[in-house]
Amino acid sequence: MPYARISLHKGRSAEWLSALSRSLQQSLEEAFEVPPHDCFQVIHQCAPGELVYDPQYFGGPRSEGFVLIHITAGRVRTTQRKQAFYARLVARLVDSPGVRPEDVMVIISTTAEEDWSFSMGRAQMLERR
Amino acid sequence: MPYARISLHKGRSAEWLSALSRSLQQSLEEAFEVPPHDCFQVIHQCAPGELVYDPQYFGGPRSEGFVLIHITAGRVRTTQRKQAFYARLVARLVDSPGVRPEDVMVIISTTAEEDWSFSMGRAQMLERR
Amino acid sequence: MPYARISLHKGRSAEWLSALSRSLQQSLEEAFEVPPHDCFQVIHQCAPGELVYDPQYFGGPRSEGFVLIHITAGRVRTTQRKQAFYARLVARLVDSPGVRPEDVMVIISTTAEEDWSFSMGRAQMLERR
Repeated sequence: MPYARISLHKGRSAEWLSALSRSLQQSLEEAFEVPPHDCFQVIHQCAPGELVYDPQYFGGPRSEGFVLIHITAGRVRTTQRKQAFYARLVARLVDSPGVRPEDVMVIISTTAEEDWSFSMGRAQMLERR
Repeated sequence: MPYARISLHKGRSAEWLSALSRSLQQSLEEAFEVPPHDCFQVIHQCAPGELVYDPQYFGGPRSEGFVLIHITAGRVRTTQRKQAFYARLVARLVDSPGVRPEDVMVIISTTAEEDWSFSMGRAQMLERR
Repeated sequence: MPYARISLHKGRSAEWLSALSRSLQQSLEEAFEVPPHDCFQVIHQCAPGELVYDPQYFGGPRSEGFVLIHITAGRVRTTQRKQAFYARLVARLVDSPGVRPEDVMVIISTTAEEDWSFSMGRAQMLERR
């Protein structure tokens, strides 16, 4: 039920982006209580000047390889769950496609389950109850 | 007061996108308590690989024609209102420009009225009171 | 801790975009309780038809120079703080790069501090306490 908007600089190969996508999804499944196949992502490949970030605020040094991941989640997770997810995500991204830990930034926004219609004009999360 | 971010694959005509935009706005006015002229949308036309989605999670089968609509609303609506909106939106999009019901996904995020400045550096929603 | 998504029409120079970015960041620091260097922005330069907006709803008349700024903040600000920020932002953007006041729209979404990982897979805001 989360969906993710991923912003990064243009210039990565299709294989690299696909590996990024897979590692993000694996981390969500392993550490953020996301079921298999619940995968929705939009990638925004930025031209020079479109992605603006401080190189060192609360982390870094950030490089040209900076990746900003904004996740919209369908329900609240605990603080501990979020912290475990951040750590898992960075470990996965370091492993594949090879993002520097300093270059990973994550933001989580939260909605309610009724705020999601996956298909067909229905609110599938309400029907589960 | 809502604004919508629409993500879909590149390749649609200007007329098709315009019809999509109109059907979304009509649905908001008819079923989501949005007044006429309250229309703000951003369309993100994705290159291959930029739009990642599971073909069958809670719906589908999704095709290359998948459309993800993320709405940021200025105040809370009831559960029933949201459900009616999802249904109306899909009916409208099926009719024009001709989106498959399986290909429509909607997510709603909610803010407060004071979180909107429409123009001129003022918080117009607060001035109405 | 805020990050901003800026949507506007394609066609501005790199210098113009850079001035827009700086004025936004200055306004956040001066009027939205954002510390220096806390700067994260994504700019979406829209092709014709990708940016849809009513010319006059609660403001305007909006021109082709319309700029939509969606800010995701890490904590709540007061109503007065938001109002002061809207006004300051428009004043700054009028001054540089020269945006018409009628063309500035702002939306603020709010998260919690634990929803941010700036780098390294850690939740830096929690570590400050």
